[in-house]
Amino acid sequence: MSDEKIYQASVTAPVNIAVVKYWGKRDQNLNLPTNSSISITLSQSDLRAHTTASCSASFDSGDSLLLNSKPEDVTNTRVQACFRELRTLRSINESSDSSQPKISHLPLRIVSENNFPTAAGLASSAAGFAALVFAIANLYKLSSSTTDLSRIARQGSGSACRSLFGGFVEWQMGNLSDGSDSTAVQIAPASHWPTMRALILVISGAKKDVSSTSGMQATNKTSELFKRRVEVIAPANIELMQSAIVNKNFETFAKVTMSDSNNFHATCLDTFPPIFYLNDTSRAAIRIVEDLNRTSNRTVAAYTFDAGPNAVIYYQEEDEKLVAGILKGIIGHVDGWHARGKTISPLTYDGFDERAIELLQNGVNRVIMTGIGNGPIITEESLISNSGEPLRR
Amino acid sequence: MSDEKIYQASVTAPVNIAVVKYWGKRDQNLNLPTNSSISITLSQSDLRAHTTASCSASFDSGDSLLLNSKPEDVTNTRVQACFRELRTLRSINESSDSSQPKISHLPLRIVSENNFPTAAGLASSAAGFAALVFAIANLYKLSSSTTDLSRIARQGSGSACRSLFGGFVEWQMGNLSDGSDSTAVQIAPASHWPTMRALILVISGAKKDVSSTSGMQATNKTSELFKRRVEVIAPANIELMQSAIVNKNFETFAKVTMSDSNNFHATCLDTFPPIFYLNDTSRAAIRIVEDLNRTSNRTVAAYTFDAGPNAVIYYQEEDEKLVAGILKGIIGHVDGWHARGKTISPLTYDGFDERAIELLQNGVNRVIMTGIGNGPIITEESLISNSGEPLRR
Repeated sequence: MSDEKIYQASVTAPVNIAVVKYWGKRDQNLNLPTNSSISITLSQSDLRAHTTASCSASFDSGDSLLLNSKPEDVTNTRVQACFRELRTLRSINESSDSSQPKISHLPLRIVSENNFPTAAGLASSAAGFAALVFAIANLYKLSSSTTDLSRIARQGSGSACRSLFGGFVEWQMGNLSDGSDSTAVQIAPASHWPTMRALILVISGAKKDVSSTSGMQATNKTSELFKRRVEVIAPANIELMQSAIVNKNFETFAKVTMSDSNNFHATCLDTFPPIFYLNDTSRAAIRIVEDLNRTSNRTVAAYTFDAGPNAVIYYQEEDEKLVAGILKGIIGHVDGWHARGKTISPLTYDGFDERAIELLQNGVNRVIMTGIGNGPIITEESLISNSGEPLRR
Repeated sequence: MSDEKIYQASVTAPVNIAVVKYWGKRDQNLNLPTNSSISITLSQSDLRAHTTASCSASFDSGDSLLLNSKPEDVTNTRVQACFRELRTLRSINESSDSSQPKISHLPLRIVSENNFPTAAGLASSAAGFAALVFAIANLYKLSSSTTDLSRIARQGSGSACRSLFGGFVEWQMGNLSDGSDSTAVQIAPASHWPTMRALILVISGAKKDVSSTSGMQATNKTSELFKRRVEVIAPANIELMQSAIVNKNFETFAKVTMSDSNNFHATCLDTFPPIFYLNDTSRAAIRIVEDLNRTSNRTVAAYTFDAGPNAVIYYQEEDEKLVAGILKGIIGHVDGWHARGKTISPLTYDGFDERAIELLQNGVNRVIMTGIGNGPIITEESLISNSGEPLRR
């Protein structure tokens, strides 16, 4: 029977780390932000979500989603919003072109795996929802633009919209109440500034007290300072950052990246009750980046922190020996220094803050060396067998 | 010879801890603040600066200041400003009343001692400059009002102006460029709300990276959020706090105290490069106060942090068994629980954050139990002998 056929498509999608942060929603249900944000898409060679989307009349137990071998709740509104939007687009195509098989109503079976180091505490929802949307769009052979897909992914997880593009990406907040103009656009592809590198310090910390979603709500509701971030600071940082990226001006890029991260965490501290994502080890990482720039007499590195203690340090490839070398000198004992066969020689770090060095040595669990990368891609590697069963890879 | 006579006066002056913080100067030289602030004066039974001011023609080596047995530089502009203002007032009196001995031009010898626990890291400059100004004013038998003296003490150390009064004190920022209207006034004496108590958690931390003075400059110069604090938040908190004090409304007092402290530290984090005074132990103290209020189903305690990691926890005497009891249950092993013969019974703390408890147990060095107190007082205990030599007490 033809309607027992199993349709499938497999993709991988990248992680992105914002340099002008998203924090605060003007609409909870639609994930509409209070300000625009800009991120860098990281290489999928190091960090990626891998997702196979399939559908078949033989999937008789309804829609399902298996994430890292664990069944996820597909009835939650975020997943449902993505499924609904994509099905609608498919059904429009099916109506207008009778040669297309009628699959939009079939149960979906999604299998997804992240290749992130266990317990890295890296935000996986952005890559995950980008992969989910991109996989289903391919399954359904939709002709939607990447920006159109970003609008759908945004409803799954706000920052997921930025993971639909490679390189430097802006999520434009938009103004319309239905969110139709709140989408991602590419400022520049990875090839524009391919030497942009990222070194992630995975920092141990207590489990997050406050989820991003509830944290954003609390900040929006209780922080007076947050109003200034939304009205004045974030818009100014967006403009400065666009220009820094277009002109490959690392000094401005770094200054805006660091001060925007500080500004975001300041509004968290101004929330009542206060929200803390940075811990003493995070602050030590800030101090070491300051020491790196001071002892170099120029800006060679920039720190940024999402809603957690991990430090992401951006630098340019020409400074890798210095930036990664000093950090390897300090925390060479942790895993992660042998990325893609490169060997970093540890350097000495005279004049660096001793207390910060000690805190990093005790508080960093591993590093991840990566760099700028491209957007989601189609892969032949499927996570679902021809008979529809999940495969472990 | 009569002009070899040694004149002297001895005083003690209190510490104050702000509940609406002073941070940011509109004039560096005159110590004029960017916003008004409110503090509580703490009891001198527990914390005080003790100062003897003397003058004599026999002091032939010029002005001198001995602080905790160490000679201090009296040529710095802050000390000089206080000396100059007080001498001017004395010389006016001498000119208008010839019966007054001519002592305004004589070398000053000041000896001062703090009774603070060693290495407590408590701000001593406020009590110190209040004592210095009050001692010299008594030496010179000035009839100046306390508010007039606060104007002088402000030039030594901004927050010193608040230590000239007991109870609840507002430092009104003033508007005039010469600072003549930037003085302290008493909102209410200690007797208005005598049950106000303070428990100080002395928290170990690296030596302060950034002094208050240079920190304030950096924040004023680089933090966009700070503008909102100055323009909107601090003025609103001043009004709320005045009313909370007048009405002895602890719930509002606590809410404003905590959020103003968070707001101040948020602007420090928004400074570039960022300034951190709170550490992981400080944040654990915040969490424990949140747990205290949550488990009590009402607001029994409020935290506040000056430019350092120490937590000051305000509460009312009727809640001492609970607030101090829980804290003694957690950190009963440190010194400071036997203030003035009172015994606090340790309580159990079911449902409190375990990670915060562990951090407090490892990071608190001692506690200081104290409460609201009165302004500077004259004492017979002199720190200078009849022959003009410093005495150790």
